[in-house]
This record gives sequence, structure tokens and C-alpha cells, in this order.
Amino acid sequence: MSAGQAAPVADLRSDTLTRPSEGMRRAMAYADVGDDVYAEDPTVNALEARVAEMFGHEAGLFCPSGTMTNMLGVAASVPRGTELLAESRAHVLRAEVGGHAALAGVTSRTWISPDGTLDADAAMSLAERANGYNQVGTAAITVENTHNFSGGRVAALDELRRLRTLTAERGIRVHMDGARVANAVVASGCSFADQGECVDSLSLCMSKGLGAPVGSVLTGDAELIGEARYLRKRYGGGMRQAGILAAAGHYALEHNVDRLAEDHARAHLIAARVAEAVPGTCDPDIVETNIAFLSTAALTVDAAEFAELAAARGVRITPLGEQACRLVTHLDVDDAAAGSAARILAELAERTAA
Amino acid sequence: MSAGQAAPVADLRSDTLTRPSEGMRRAMAYADVGDDVYAEDPTVNALEARVAEMFGHEAGLFCPSGTMTNMLGVAASVPRGTELLAESRAHVLRAEVGGHAALAGVTSRTWISPDGTLDADAAMSLAERANGYNQVGTAAITVENTHNFSGGRVAALDELRRLRTLTAERGIRVHMDGARVANAVVASGCSFADQGECVDSLSLCMSKGLGAPVGSVLTGDAELIGEARYLRKRYGGGMRQAGILAAAGHYALEHNVDRLAEDHARAHLIAARVAEAVPGTCDPDIVETNIAFLSTAALTVDAAEFAELAAARGVRITPLGEQACRLVTHLDVDDAAAGSAARILAELAERTAA
Amino acid sequence: MSAGQAAPVADLRSDTLTRPSEGMRRAMAYADVGDDVYAEDPTVNALEARVAEMFGHEAGLFCPSGTMTNMLGVAASVPRGTELLAESRAHVLRAEVGGHAALAGVTSRTWISPDGTLDADAAMSLAERANGYNQVGTAAITVENTHNFSGGRVAALDELRRLRTLTAERGIRVHMDGARVANAVVASGCSFADQGECVDSLSLCMSKGLGAPVGSVLTGDAELIGEARYLRKRYGGGMRQAGILAAAGHYALEHNVDRLAEDHARAHLIAARVAEAVPGTCDPDIVETNIAFLSTAALTVDAAEFAELAAARGVRITPLGEQACRLVTHLDVDDAAAGSAARILAELAERTAA
Amino acid sequence: MSAGQAAPVADLRSDTLTRPSEGMRRAMAYADVGDDVYAEDPTVNALEARVAEMFGHEAGLFCPSGTMTNMLGVAASVPRGTELLAESRAHVLRAEVGGHAALAGVTSRTWISPDGTLDADAAMSLAERANGYNQVGTAAITVENTHNFSGGRVAALDELRRLRTLTAERGIRVHMDGARVANAVVASGCSFADQGECVDSLSLCMSKGLGAPVGSVLTGDAELIGEARYLRKRYGGGMRQAGILAAAGHYALEHNVDRLAEDHARAHLIAARVAEAVPGTCDPDIVETNIAFLSTAALTVDAAEFAELAAARGVRITPLGEQACRLVTHLDVDDAAAGSAARILAELAERTAA
Repeated sequence: MSAGQAAPVADLRSDTLTRPSEGMRRAMAYADVGDDVYAEDPTVNALEARVAEMFGHEAGLFCPSGTMTNMLGVAASVPRGTELLAESRAHVLRAEVGGHAALAGVTSRTWISPDGTLDADAAMSLAERANGYNQVGTAAITVENTHNFSGGRVAALDELRRLRTLTAERGIRVHMDGARVANAVVASGCSFADQGECVDSLSLCMSKGLGAPVGSVLTGDAELIGEARYLRKRYGGGMRQAGILAAAGHYALEHNVDRLAEDHARAHLIAARVAEAVPGTCDPDIVETNIAFLSTAALTVDAAEFAELAAARGVRITPLGEQACRLVTHLDVDDAAAGSAARILAELAERTAA
Repeated sequence: MSAGQAAPVADLRSDTLTRPSEGMRRAMAYADVGDDVYAEDPTVNALEARVAEMFGHEAGLFCPSGTMTNMLGVAASVPRGTELLAESRAHVLRAEVGGHAALAGVTSRTWISPDGTLDADAAMSLAERANGYNQVGTAAITVENTHNFSGGRVAALDELRRLRTLTAERGIRVHMDGARVANAVVASGCSFADQGECVDSLSLCMSKGLGAPVGSVLTGDAELIGEARYLRKRYGGGMRQAGILAAAGHYALEHNVDRLAEDHARAHLIAARVAEAVPGTCDPDIVETNIAFLSTAALTVDAAEFAELAAARGVRITPLGEQACRLVTHLDVDDAAAGSAARILAELAERTAA
Repeated sequence: MSAGQAAPVADLRSDTLTRPSEGMRRAMAYADVGDDVYAEDPTVNALEARVAEMFGHEAGLFCPSGTMTNMLGVAASVPRGTELLAESRAHVLRAEVGGHAALAGVTSRTWISPDGTLDADAAMSLAERANGYNQVGTAAITVENTHNFSGGRVAALDELRRLRTLTAERGIRVHMDGARVANAVVASGCSFADQGECVDSLSLCMSKGLGAPVGSVLTGDAELIGEARYLRKRYGGGMRQAGILAAAGHYALEHNVDRLAEDHARAHLIAARVAEAVPGTCDPDIVETNIAFLSTAALTVDAAEFAELAAARGVRITPLGEQACRLVTHLDVDDAAAGSAARILAELAERTAA
Repeated sequence: MSAGQAAPVADLRSDTLTRPSEGMRRAMAYADVGDDVYAEDPTVNALEARVAEMFGHEAGLFCPSGTMTNMLGVAASVPRGTELLAESRAHVLRAEVGGHAALAGVTSRTWISPDGTLDADAAMSLAERANGYNQVGTAAITVENTHNFSGGRVAALDELRRLRTLTAERGIRVHMDGARVANAVVASGCSFADQGECVDSLSLCMSKGLGAPVGSVLTGDAELIGEARYLRKRYGGGMRQAGILAAAGHYALEHNVDRLAEDHARAHLIAARVAEAVPGTCDPDIVETNIAFLSTAALTVDAAEFAELAAARGVRITPLGEQACRLVTHLDVDDAAAGSAARILAELAERTAA
């Protein structure tokens, strides 16, 4: 039975699925634009400056995707053939088609944080200096906040600060994959500037929880952004009247940040209901933001089968591996939809429980 | 004296400068969208199918820039370390920051067409087979239509067809950099399908003469487009609700193709007036589309100085090299603006004549 | 005080330092040679066949270095942008100047074995399938046997076999960095074929413990070696009358394998003496082959300072990191030299003990 | 009928086929060696210094192949994504498996010299400055001396000097592919220093006409060689006791330079005899060094067939393209062999004349 046969209840596959609201569409329709390849688009320029300022960085660069802002941030920080360290399930290494290595020539090693929380010591334990005629030096460490594949976990600000101190002593840069850093800020009550202070470069995605259709902004110092701007053109990310898209970014920053708390509450609610139905499937205690994982280990079906059953009931979720499904709440999932999804998933869990 | 001090008359630096019209903005504002990374954006899907059909190709791929559609078309056709042949001033080799080599590992050799017209024999004279343990084989030839740096020259359809026959015999692919192929079609009276028939892949830019703010479409057979779709994500070109942009592409194809003839007439007019004022500066006989070159060889100023003088009078043009300025007409340059620009440039040429 | 001022006692920096013996020089002087780029060098061809047969593989390829055989083995197994897994201190990732990423575009993640022994489950726990539009798949796992930076530890044959079974089920390749696999074979009493059976490709270095001046052999199936041969030329590893070097390889396989046991005994002896002098500096129990590590954690000097003190007494060792020195025994370190080195290092440890 | 069936008369496929002489083998057998990765091989160090001094350059680097010295020379001179200019049949672009692009990311454009002689104006006519946000700048020009695929033509010293002046004004580097620059020096009566003065980097191959088994030396200033030394390790060109090979290089420079004149005379003789037999097949007037081309345009067989007929008579030559065979004389082709080869090739040309 295909997903299409059920009336859609909630599409929880990803927060990239959000469609622009009426207000956002209006902002785009009236955007003041210019040719951004010539750096003449006022709306893009303003968004770049705005996001940079939010994080306390010197400059920003608007790009068509978070994959590109991550790749350019990494490429501008890590010379070819030198090393980037990351947690083993980092999106940069796992889910960006290998661009950092295939295109930017960056080698990588990984530490392992079973629960996805940031552990500065684990990260630093891998750091090495270039040495002699052959040894690769660590140029940068990347931190993902929130950490997607571990269920949207927030990197503790104290740990981020400790990492900043430890890396600064060693001349190692820190890049934050901040695809969902706004979720982290809202969930933890810190500021964007708190996050920016801890890193050299940061990629903020406009088209996830913030609800814009397209675009990410990379921030950092003027030199790094200058290099990234040059590379952006080479990678094919130079857009013309991109102010149309940047206008949605401005709108998102004005209207869609604080409301992320609602997404978090809904994700927590779904996880709690499913856990209630079949303990061990979800763990609401670690649902800090808008992502929850549902384990099928205690069920009689695997992740792909469970996702298919859910789709048949109008709830779409993403199997990741053989025993885990990811659920993501977002702008287009309101209280009613979250409630229905929670009920349906809880029922399915019960029905398939071992 | 800076350009800003003069009232703007005409910005002839590039046809990428066009701003979306009211109608186009409306089309974007009401676009039906989805997540294009999941291939679920109906407006993008329709644009890809529409452009593919226009050229008689199997499939299409929407990307943020023409640099990306060229790079992906080349990368999907030319294995790393094998060869792409091009005319010596081809945009792919000259003006895309070297991405084909730096990222896709494509080596290149060039034939030289002094006037930029297509010469299939000159192209084929360089073609080589892979041989023995070390010799590089020619995988593809790229043709640019119209040819930007030679003044918007149109590739003769007969010559394109001859190249198609010669390359097919040798198993060599042809990629068309069709950034301005709509100009070529309008200027020569052939069809888009005529162009598509002669090539294996084609990049059509929506944000030059066609007037859309962002985006290019790559077309080709399903296998090539499948490979390009995979690479698009790696290069960072995967956008989410890109239907906002694709809607502008649909609008452009409906409203802005035939009117390119007006741009061509205006470019010709400017070139004719300047040539009349100082013979040898422009050659209206070779202005086939919306691009004209102005030589400063017979003037007392060089290209950069001439461009600055023009800017001071409100006419912006692009110095390319030491003795040539490029002038490009487009949607945002009407008859009055073209007339004023022609008058101003003619006056400046006269005043600076040797 | 510089190292040059002391009479040389033993150079324990690396087993790459061995100079060819009289017999080996004679073998080179009389080698039958041809142009190996044309695959016409009989001595190279014979060495490639011989090493392949030793490991039970179909074909071999002679290259100028182990860095090249590792890179070609990896590049021929792991498509650009897909993933190689390795232990966190693997030589391929740490000490080959990042070539796998910088040149072959291979991305990597690492498991951590604190003592350097092989743990198939730790390796497999990272393995992932390519998934959806963006997720990187694991193409290969690399195992280093013996494991240089963990002190020449031998990978347990049972564990290698278990890894072979687990990877085969998943379609994941295994590449062995067998720079010192001859040491592993001699130390563990298994055969070269036992090692070869567990992997898809294997790099055997001739210029480490085996004592040849230059060269490594990559082995694998005919298709992998064919691809590697093509790449060898591109990377600049195509040599002409390389039979001169291959002759030394033949000599090494005939004369220098069994004697590796002497190197192992000497490394153990040095470690035991130093441990006796200052417990905690060396651990003779984990010195399985020709490499020992000396920790300066319990000394008043750091690794670089200790190495300098040793050099001043004629014993050269390599500081690796801040608190560890590596000692390597080899053909040019006989019993007397090993004894003297042990005495000198023990004295220095005592004198600098905290 | 296979080549093996005839008694070998002369192998004219390439001058890479030379086998080391007794004297050269002796020099290798007694070479003083060390670990060149640690820069401790005295024979390598001396050869690097010697070749650098010959060309008046600051430093040298010994590598396993001319492909590697060319690639490193280019990679150290041309930043990724910037441009190298070359003649259209340059070995660097045509016969090195595309490494400059596939690995070093160098883009290239070509001028065309039908007869292979150097034309500095043709080269410079392509040179461009980086410009604006997207235009590729020319970083270096490569000159091949002698020019292999045009028949071993010598670059005129005056033209090299003119190119040096023109490029210096523009900040463009010159790399010489001097695989056979010793032939050029002997043929034209200039000095090695004359050649070195005209270029920033130079690759001299030891294993072509000079008769050493393996190796090439790259020369240039200390910074360029430092960068190349770093890259050599990454590309897998770091060899250990490479003094064995470098000793052959010293021997070659002492014994095999002046005698190249004999190779030149023999190539001329063969070309003259064949031209006498069938005018239009060879052109002895352009045989300046040790390479001659034989055209099959006026014969009833194509190049591959002619080469096979010759092989059946014991003379091996290389078909390059459909109507040309390349003949190369070298150390292992004496007067008698050259005479016999000339007679056989002349007879075959007569017999197959149209």
C-alpha cells in the first residue's frame, strides 16, 4: 500500500519540507534585488550582514544550500590534504555526498559520541600537528548543533566554550554546521552570539526549521568569507537576483525563530506518546529540539517496514538504518497534526510490538 | 569620478542584471512548491520536463547557476583526466573559475576561431583517441551558442549539424553552453529542437536575456541527467522549494523569448552609431544578437578608461582585456535607453579618437 | 649538542633506513631489465607475479613507494566521494600527506582502538550503506598490519577472518596496508596466504624491514590491478628499467623474511631493559614485532628532548607527539648495536626519571 | 605475423627503452646511499644539486618519472583552477594521463604550432589576467624542448628568450618539459644554462636519451622545489635509498650527453634513406634530433599496418594516429642497427607505395 493512498496527516520526514507562508511569499514578491554575482543585491547584502552580526562575525555569504555553506566553510578553513575532525555521525561527513573530500580534498577522522552530545576532550584527543615530511595536521574541527543523526541533541554551551579554548591554544579552527543552530539557541536559551563566539565559521540554514524555501548563510571573518565567495562561484553557487530568496531569509529571522519552541514541544509530545505505548521505542528525555528517533528494535518490523505502515496511515517518517526512524516537526505540522501523528505512531508501535 | 555620480542611463555590463518584472514576481509568489531535493517540487519538475522537451532531450535538471549546469554537463560527460575541447575563448574555460579542472578534473585543449564562429573542422582536428598507457582521449567538445566573448556570434546550424555527424562517428560527446541559446534561436530563426538535436547535453540559462532572477536548466538523456543530479547535491546545488525560482523560468519561456529580437536590434543600433562616429570601434555587421564589442585600439584611452568615462555619463559597460569593452542589451534597456547610450558612447568615442 | 657529535651507535628512527647489502647490490647490478611502462621488464613482471602468488591474489603492481601502493589500492577500491574506514591512527590517514583525500577524493571515518589491535566489530559499527540522495556509503575498510603508530601490533588472524566475513556480507572491500605484513607473518607464524585471503588488496613494502632500497608491491584481482596500473601512470609512478629495483625485492624475499625474528627479539630486548630501568616507560609485553614505544610521561623531559639526549649519545629515535618516542629495529641494527642502544636508553631514562 | 618471429634489428619505439650499460650498472652497485625521504641520500642530494647548477637554478628534486616532475613543476607553479598554456600537442597535456587536471586541478588552453617550433607570440596571444569574480588567469606557460610529437623539434633559443621577456613582464611562469632538453642542447650548441635561464622550472629526464633506468630531476627556485618536495610525498614519489638510481643519473651526465649527436645523425640517416625511397614519407630536413616521423599518407597501408610489417622484419616503431609512425634512435641503436633499420624501412615504404 503506497503512502499516496492515505489522507496526509503529517509529513515528518524532514523540516526541509516546509512551504513558504503567505507572509514570506509576499516578502519575496516585493524584494529589492540586484545581481548578487556583482555583490549588488541589497537584500542579499543585508541578510549576509544581518546573520554575521547575529553571530558576532565579520561577514556572511548567502549560498543555495547548507551543503554548500558547509563545504565552503570547510574548504576555506582546511587546506587540501589536511584534516577535519568530526563526530562519527556528522552530517558533513555522512550526508553531503562526500563533497569535502571529493571536491575540496579534505581528509577526516572521527571521534564517537554514542549519544551525540559534544565532548571536547574526545574531539581534542584526535588532534595532531603536521610533523616531518609526511604527517597530516589537524586544521579544523566541525561541530554540528543541533546534531541531526543523534536526534537533534544540543551541544552544551560550556562544552563549546571549552572546545574553543582548547582549539585556540592549538591553532585549530572550529566550523559549526549550524543547520539547526536556531533550534539549539531556542532550546537552550543562549544567544546566537554565544554560539558565534565559539567558532570561526558557521553555516546557518534558512530552509529547515526557519521555513525559507532556499538558502544558507555562511559567516566568519572577512578573509574566510572572501575565500568562500571566490570558491562559491567555482562551485556554481553564484546566483543573480538572489534577493528574492534572501527576502524569505529576513522574514524567517523575524517570524520563525521563537516559534521553534512549538516544534520542540510537538516532537517531545510525539516521542512521549509512543514511548508510553511501547517503552524503548522513543526516549522523550533526549528529545531536546524538533527531532525524535523511534527504534524498531523492540518491534516485529524493521525501520523501512514501520515507515511504510506509517505512510499508509498518512504519517511520513524517514528510516535511517535498519532499526531507526527519524521524525522531525516543523512549521507545517501544527498541534492537531502532531497529535494525530502521535496517536497513529503509538498505535502502530503497539500493534507491531514483539 | 565614480559611476554613481551620473544619473543612470543604461547598464550594459551584462544581461544577468535584469530584474524580475511584476508579472514574473507574481508567478513566483503563487508558485506551487515542494522539496526539490526529494524531487517533489511540481514547478521545478515541470520546468525540467518543459525545457527537456523544447530541446528534444529526455530529461532536465534545474540548478542555481549556468556555471553549475555547465560543470555538471561536462563532469557527467568527461571522465576525470580525459579531455574536453573548446574554442579558446569559451566561457567554460575562461570565466567559470576553472571549476571543470579544479573540481571535475577535466583536461582541456582549445582551437582558435578568431571571429568566434563555429568551425567543426578546427574542433575535430584536435580530437584524439586514448592510446597506449598514457595518451589522453577526447571525451567531449563544447560549443557556446551564442559565443559570449566573440560578441554574441551565432553558431551556424549547418556547422553544428556537421559537428554532430563528425563527433558521432568518433564517439565524442557534444555539450552546448547555451547560456544564450535562446538568443541564437531567435536570431537565426531555427528551433530549440534544432539546437538540441546537435548535442548530447545543453545548459540553458534563465537569468540572462530571459530575465529570470536565478537558475539554469541542464538537459540530456536520462542517464546523464541522473549522474548530474547526483553530482548537483555534492556540489551544493540541491535547493529545497526551488519552485519559487522555477516559476520565473516558466514565465520567462512564455513571455521573454520572442522579445529577444528587440535586444538584438538595440545592440545593433548602438554598434552602428558608434561605428558611424569612429569607424573601427564597433562592427555592426557582426552584431548578430545582444552583445557588441567596442575596440579602443583607435582611441587615446584604454578599455578601462573608456568604461570609466562612460560610467561617468551613466552608461555602464565592461572592459574585457586592454582594448575591448563589452556592451550587452537586455530586458531592462528599452529603446530610449539604448538610444541615449548610443549617443553617449558615440560622443565619447569621438572625443577620445586618436 | 647535535646528534652528529656522537659516534653513531644505532639509528632506530625507522626500518626504512636500511642500506642494501653486498648480495642485494649484486642482484641489482645483474638484473635483467626492460621498459616497465611497456610492461616489458622481466624482473618487475616476475616480482609482481611472485608477490601476488604469495598472497594468493591474481596480480601485482610494483610502485616507487608504499604511499603510492596504498593510495592506488584505496583509489581503485573506493569511488571518489565514498568512504574508507580506518583505525584512528592508521598510516594511510595520518602519515601519507592526505593523498587519499587530496588526490583520490576519498572520505574517511575512524574507529578508535586504544591499543592498536584489530577489532572487527568496532570497524563494522561505522559501516553505512549509501542511502537516498545524499548519504555516503562505506566502500572499503583498511587494516594496517602490523600497526605502526600503536607499536607494531599484529592484527589477530581470527579477527581478520571475522572482518573478511562481515565485510563480504555487506559488499565492503578490505585493503591491507601491509607495509610490515612480513613482520606480522613472522611474528604470528601464519602464512602470507593467510593474510591475502582476508583482503581484496594488499600493499607490501620492500623498503622497510625487508631491506630493499625502493619499492612496494600492490596485489589484488586483475581488475583492481588493471585500474591501479592506469592510475600509477597518472600519479607519476611509471618507471622504466625498474627491474634494477625489483631485483632487490626478489633478493629481500629470499633472504630477509625469516630474519625479521631477530629484529623482533632486539626490539623486545631494548624495551625490556628500558622498562626495567624505569617502569612505565616501555611495555615489553606489547612489543610483538620490530617497533617499541617509549613514553616520557614519567620523565622530566618531553619526547623531543629525550630524543635529542639519545642522539647525543649516538642513538637516534623518533619523537611522535609530546610524550612518545618510537624505536624501530632493522637489518642494520645487530645484537651489539641493540645492546648498546638498550643500555644508553635505559641510562637516559634513569637519569631523567621524575 | 608477430614481431617476435623476426630477429630483432632495432627497437625504435622510444628512447626510454635503453638498458643501463656495464659502467652505469657498476656506478649503481657502488652508490653511497641513505634514506632520501629524510633527505639523507648523498648521491641523490648531489644529483639534485648538480642538475640545478647545470641549469643555473637554486634547487633540484629527484622523482621516479618525468610525468611526476612535470606534474609537480606545474602543480607548484599553477594554483588549482588557474591556467597553464601549452602547444596543442604538448606531452604534458597529451600523454600524461591528464594528471595536471585530474590531480592538480590545472585548467589548460592551447595554441597550435603546425610544425612544433616555438612561437612566443602564439603562446602569449592566449595569456589572460584573472579578472572580476570569475575569469581565470594564466599562471604559467609550458614549453617542450625538444617537442616530442612534432618530431623532436628544437625550440629556438632566441624565441625562448623572447618568451622569457614577455612572460616576465606579465608575471607568468614558464615550465620547460625538458624530457629531451639534452638533445636540444647538443643539437643546437647552446648550454644547459641557456635553457635554464629562460624558465622558472625544468624537468630533465634521465631515462630517455641519457640512458639511465629510472628518474627525472625537477629544478627551480628553492621555494618551488620546497613545495614540489612536499607534493612528491603526497603523490607517492618519495623513495628511500634512491641513490642507487641517482648514481645512474650521474653516470649518464658524465658519459651520455655528447654522444646524443650520434643518435641525431642516425635518425637523420634513417629519415633520409626512407625519403629517398619514397619521397613524402619522411622529411630529413626537420629531423633535428633523435626523433623522426614517417607518414603513411602516400602508402597503401596505414600506420598500424606499416608498424606491423616493420616489426615482422625486426624493426619496431610506434604508430601515432592513423598516418604517422614515430622512430626514435638511442643508446642501444648503433650504426649497424640504424643502417639495417633504414634499409628495411625504405624497402617496406617502396613495397607499400601507392
